[in-house]
Amino acid sequence: MASSHATPVNRQFRLRNRPVGRIKTSDFDLVEAAPPEPGEREALVRTLYLSLDPTNRIWMSDMDQYMPPVEIGAVMRGGGLGLVVQSNSARYKEGDIVSGLTNWQDYSIAGERPDNMMGVIPKGLPVPLTAMMGACGMTGLTAYFGLLEHGRPKEGDTLLVSAAAGAVGSVVGQIGKIKGCRVVGIAGGADKCRFIVEQLGFDAAIDYKRGDWREALAAATPEGIDINFENVGGEIMDAVMARMNLYSRMPLCGMISGYNSGELMRGDFSPILMRRIRISGFIVTDFAAKFAEGSVQLAQWVAGGLIKHHETIVEGLENAPVAVNRLFDGQNIGKLIVKVSEAPVQ
Amino acid sequence: MASSHATPVNRQFRLRNRPVGRIKTSDFDLVEAAPPEPGEREALVRTLYLSLDPTNRIWMSDMDQYMPPVEIGAVMRGGGLGLVVQSNSARYKEGDIVSGLTNWQDYSIAGERPDNMMGVIPKGLPVPLTAMMGACGMTGLTAYFGLLEHGRPKEGDTLLVSAAAGAVGSVVGQIGKIKGCRVVGIAGGADKCRFIVEQLGFDAAIDYKRGDWREALAAATPEGIDINFENVGGEIMDAVMARMNLYSRMPLCGMISGYNSGELMRGDFSPILMRRIRISGFIVTDFAAKFAEGSVQLAQWVAGGLIKHHETIVEGLENAPVAVNRLFDGQNIGKLIVKVSEAPVQ
Repeated sequence: MASSHATPVNRQFRLRNRPVGRIKTSDFDLVEAAPPEPGEREALVRTLYLSLDPTNRIWMSDMDQYMPPVEIGAVMRGGGLGLVVQSNSARYKEGDIVSGLTNWQDYSIAGERPDNMMGVIPKGLPVPLTAMMGACGMTGLTAYFGLLEHGRPKEGDTLLVSAAAGAVGSVVGQIGKIKGCRVVGIAGGADKCRFIVEQLGFDAAIDYKRGDWREALAAATPEGIDINFENVGGEIMDAVMARMNLYSRMPLCGMISGYNSGELMRGDFSPILMRRIRISGFIVTDFAAKFAEGSVQLAQWVAGGLIKHHETIVEGLENAPVAVNRLFDGQNIGKLIVKVSEAPVQ
Repeated sequence: MASSHATPVNRQFRLRNRPVGRIKTSDFDLVEAAPPEPGEREALVRTLYLSLDPTNRIWMSDMDQYMPPVEIGAVMRGGGLGLVVQSNSARYKEGDIVSGLTNWQDYSIAGERPDNMMGVIPKGLPVPLTAMMGACGMTGLTAYFGLLEHGRPKEGDTLLVSAAAGAVGSVVGQIGKIKGCRVVGIAGGADKCRFIVEQLGFDAAIDYKRGDWREALAAATPEGIDINFENVGGEIMDAVMARMNLYSRMPLCGMISGYNSGELMRGDFSPILMRRIRISGFIVTDFAAKFAEGSVQLAQWVAGGLIKHHETIVEGLENAPVAVNRLFDGQNIGKLIVKVSEAPVQ
């Protein structure tokens, strides 16, 4: 399976069928193709890392979604970091590291049209390269714009974050602390709850695997909830919304509890009306025009220790389909990454 | 039951028990009390008209709501118009007509504290008095601020209004036409559908009592829906949300289909996320500071024929509990009013 630099092989995960429930390796065909040939104004990119995200699960399905689903037989869509190994483009130089839709394969093409959104990462950043997928990349930007633009935190607000030990939630909570909020996280298990309080500085953590999580939620939010940064949906969302204050805000980032089931992601609308809640669905790319501003701010916070970047790295492209399930099993803390090939020393 | 001016009696509907399902007259005790005595800085008000609104049903229940529920044994809460018949207040003069919470009774007290929100209606308005409860009163203001502040209509937008022949919906659609929207209304029955198109100028009407209403909804909104002014909830809301466009807006004014059942008012959250919909729950009193501005604009539109004010008047306070069911049975067109006593000639 390993590719050699002499005779490169492009391993690709192609979607065989839409997963039902948990993702299985057999939902994909792992094929070996020749690397693509870059055309004019294009570059060849070798994948270094894949970013595993809940949105991968959405793209595998045919549910109503914000990009077209991955077609059956097509290479699985996914973000990542890659190294430019050959270039016919003035925009990409050999040795550049790019961020974008590498997809689940060893090699991809960076073009000058924005179709796979391959952007060159500036050299000399004060943060580790992998942070450019996490706290300073799409994940961090999701947290940053969702919280600041839609949540509009004010000093003293109570901010509730679900999936709080995950890649997005962990950054949301830390930005909330920077902005002076009381930050309460919901996570599964004692380890995650300790992590967000002791490592990330959350004010309180609620373990939804305990029988008394509803009482713990009430106890941790004595003045109600001003902002609910919603990542999970389901009965946790219902319980959180029941505690939201008048004129509170709810950036709707995801509903991960519903992605495997394929069922409608339903919830109670009555608090929206009675408490005049403002709910805003969003996707990070809504803010593409401001990514540079956001990344600079996030990198400063990470470099200054105000935001801790935590990641889990799984070795080997071949493990991507198994690894992505960690996002839905509650096994993951921080940013989940697959290492595909070795990055050059920066 | 009739009150005479010589020995006035204050008939009051007091809530006996919280209605289950449809409202029954037996859910109330109709008692005859002495009229209240106005204290210092207070005035005695004789009720002229009651405004019947879906919110009456909410106040009767103990569901999560935006004011305290009416207590068992207390006079039923409700808005109306009244005549000042005696005054110890510089703010209210005998002969003034006031608008506010008269409640379901013949006599009430207007105080200088804003506890029952009794405001004097200016004399010489260019619209009929009862319009001050409808298109130029709370009903019209609900439509005006919900649509303009939360819906943010732009010329060419497709505006969808549910309960479109009702008091609020009929004004929403007409304001939408003034703002250059394509306006599509959902209503029950051929009469209401003809009314909103032929009398009010809606571009299209969908009769939800027909088996093909989903197809009709699709046909009437070929470019999707930019604003959904939501009044009903339930399966109609789900079907409408499934057609909402990217970055569309949804002022959530009511969910009348759920008020009688007492069940959670649930809906599908996935379009909010995938289509980045902004949902804003609101209550007209959120905009109390701008009521004067809104009423003046609405009165100009009504006087100028741009907004048609349509009302149904039921005679007699004793009929209020039966009449209010019309709002939930789909029997009502326009503003539903109970005439309690004769207004002076203006």
